[in-house]
Amino acid sequence: MTDRYSRLVTKLKDRTATVGIIGLGYVGLPLLLRYCEVGYRVIGFDVDQSKVDALRSGKSYIEHIPAEKLAPFVMNQFEPTTDLSRVAEVDALILCVPTPLSKHREPDLSFVIGTIDSVLPYLHDGMVLSLESTTYPGTTDEELKPRIEARGLKVGTDIFLIFSPEREDPGNPNFSTRTIPKVCGGCTPQCLKVGIALYEQVVDKVVPVSSARAAELTKLLENIHRSVNIGLVNEMKIVADRMGIDLHEVIRAAATKPFGFVPYYPGPGIGGHCIPIDPFYLTWKAREYGVHTRFIELAGEINSSMPEYVISKIAESLNARKKSVNGSRILVLGLAYKKNVDDSRESPAVVIMERLRDLGASISYTDPHIPVFPVMRAHSFSLSSVTLTKQSIAEFDCLVLATDHDKFDYELIKAHAELIVDCRGRFAESASNIVKA
Amino acid sequence: MTDRYSRLVTKLKDRTATVGIIGLGYVGLPLLLRYCEVGYRVIGFDVDQSKVDALRSGKSYIEHIPAEKLAPFVMNQFEPTTDLSRVAEVDALILCVPTPLSKHREPDLSFVIGTIDSVLPYLHDGMVLSLESTTYPGTTDEELKPRIEARGLKVGTDIFLIFSPEREDPGNPNFSTRTIPKVCGGCTPQCLKVGIALYEQVVDKVVPVSSARAAELTKLLENIHRSVNIGLVNEMKIVADRMGIDLHEVIRAAATKPFGFVPYYPGPGIGGHCIPIDPFYLTWKAREYGVHTRFIELAGEINSSMPEYVISKIAESLNARKKSVNGSRILVLGLAYKKNVDDSRESPAVVIMERLRDLGASISYTDPHIPVFPVMRAHSFSLSSVTLTKQSIAEFDCLVLATDHDKFDYELIKAHAELIVDCRGRFAESASNIVKA
Repeated sequence: MTDRYSRLVTKLKDRTATVGIIGLGYVGLPLLLRYCEVGYRVIGFDVDQSKVDALRSGKSYIEHIPAEKLAPFVMNQFEPTTDLSRVAEVDALILCVPTPLSKHREPDLSFVIGTIDSVLPYLHDGMVLSLESTTYPGTTDEELKPRIEARGLKVGTDIFLIFSPEREDPGNPNFSTRTIPKVCGGCTPQCLKVGIALYEQVVDKVVPVSSARAAELTKLLENIHRSVNIGLVNEMKIVADRMGIDLHEVIRAAATKPFGFVPYYPGPGIGGHCIPIDPFYLTWKAREYGVHTRFIELAGEINSSMPEYVISKIAESLNARKKSVNGSRILVLGLAYKKNVDDSRESPAVVIMERLRDLGASISYTDPHIPVFPVMRAHSFSLSSVTLTKQSIAEFDCLVLATDHDKFDYELIKAHAELIVDCRGRFAESASNIVKA
Repeated sequence: MTDRYSRLVTKLKDRTATVGIIGLGYVGLPLLLRYCEVGYRVIGFDVDQSKVDALRSGKSYIEHIPAEKLAPFVMNQFEPTTDLSRVAEVDALILCVPTPLSKHREPDLSFVIGTIDSVLPYLHDGMVLSLESTTYPGTTDEELKPRIEARGLKVGTDIFLIFSPEREDPGNPNFSTRTIPKVCGGCTPQCLKVGIALYEQVVDKVVPVSSARAAELTKLLENIHRSVNIGLVNEMKIVADRMGIDLHEVIRAAATKPFGFVPYYPGPGIGGHCIPIDPFYLTWKAREYGVHTRFIELAGEINSSMPEYVISKIAESLNARKKSVNGSRILVLGLAYKKNVDDSRESPAVVIMERLRDLGASISYTDPHIPVFPVMRAHSFSLSSVTLTKQSIAEFDCLVLATDHDKFDYELIKAHAELIVDCRGRFAESASNIVKA
């Protein structure tokens, strides 16, 4: 054991190890870039041939990871492939595959388990396997470890298994993969040590915890905290609205308290691949222990009801102008689930668009980060982003500010819109064409 | 109007105004001290003759406001009195009276309304009245303003009315009355301007908001945020506990995320005169608008159930040692509702003590800040704080760490306690005599 452990740690530390990363999306790709930057040989795996082809020809498919950054490494230090048998070549394998929810809001581990099953034949002793996908406490110990050990590799001696949750925040100008501290928990103390050796090469600070399940819960707690805090201000928005108080003003005032308060802002609902999904992984697992996660349920309920609240505000505001939703021309500003990114996964803007279409509205959208309405599993619009001009703005009965990208020209919008339903508190309410939602 | 307004603002700015403060407790006394420090003449009002007598003889009854600070001003610039008729002498009147809940968890404004009714005969034109007591949105406009105007003083012209919530945080070493920004909302724009003139003399930063009700909701939101976040980690503690995960470790790891997460820590319940009470002021008012405040209700339910959870942990831990609660000697560490303060109002430690006594335990407590169990409306113990020594510690079957004051000698406690039920995550669980609750 000591030999395998020492040899692996040495290879990780002197950067002669080959690193494999499975899943080249928002998480895997920036991480892969970090390993390239510090000198490792990296094999990038993805089931999506089009992604592998793009990378091979030096292109990027993620807005904030420019091709210029990747190009110097491609086919040199970094080889993209769909061929999982090449896992046999790597010393470290990092799984960055999605962990969505099923239609019944249960954990869908099919990508994790499917990947593990596919790579099992190519796992070998003296390697480390790290799972980064957000999941419930126990996944690494209960799902990964037994599969690997059934294959004849003893975790902690032959092979080292860790959970180290991704903390990517696309669009965050202040923090990057390198500067975001990385939590790491091992199945055994030796596993943890290998995990630290793996990550301390590419991130400034590794935060060790006592177990894989503590690391798993850490990531969930971070996103539960966000979901609940956003749920709270969304509920408060409805209360304040009824009382005729501008909650955005109240939050800004509360945020001047230099301790004990942190501002979260209401919106038209939550989106992306983390906040609407991750908390329910804990809800599901907690049922096994006979406990309810009531804050998670309540936050989920309120956050997912927000698009309906926005719809009611739109209908009310149009009605005040003697118009119905049915037949109105409505432009949604911002398709992405949060500002300044190009990601529209689980975006409440899409839910609002669909509902308005169902009600008979003629729907358009504009998003400087998303030129064409993307292919989605559950949603379909044949639309391109409308270019905002004095004329194009004036053509709509109602504009809905769903996502407040910095790139929007708010002065232009305000000057020419007949009606703006503002879900982000971006406009002062004083103007007669502004309604807060 | 302009004359009254200008004269008052001038007197406030050149500090020739006389300031009256009603309610000389945790809020009123430090504020009064600030007005003294910057040179105002101040009259301090309290219905409690013993407080007035103490102050008159240069004594303080609040641990973190030492008598030496008050003494130089007493009967010189600062006159304490119970005589409300002297409101006739003041240019500014600040109300810092309590706003508790009734037994049925409804707002009890009797101190605010009672005070207003008592001072009505002495109100006069050219003065400003500020309410600092936490309350629901609308109190200033709906309860104070009509009473004052019925007396013949027009708000905004004859007299100026504002709401400016207190933000005191006793025991906070980093912020004081002067350095905590102060939110201020007026019934009219002129009222707001006078409010700013009143407070900018004694606090570094005044934060104006557009209305009294926005200021009222600001304060509630701050404390609702705390109540909900503490409720969330308390629920998570129970979940983590069932899963065999140390939530304190998880929270510390999550807190290394440099954005999007703020640590709150679980405990045996919440106490003090703010967090357990204030949120329900909004709940009550929201009912008038037909809206539910579900996060507030859930947080209240979970937070108030925590003492029962602690009791079950104590009973379990004693049982594992073949002991019953009935007949056990139990020492509660920390009576105060939070660390390093001498305030035991609404403290969950007291609820735990009562419940254990009801179950037949022999109860003692120790608190370096509270030498004798204080007189409380709803609780009664004839106890003095036990001095912690090797011998005294060893005499107890169980110690319950309810409040983790810095003054406790944790090494001594750990070395000699037979059993410690730790509600604050202060001890590592490795020792056999430690149980986390």
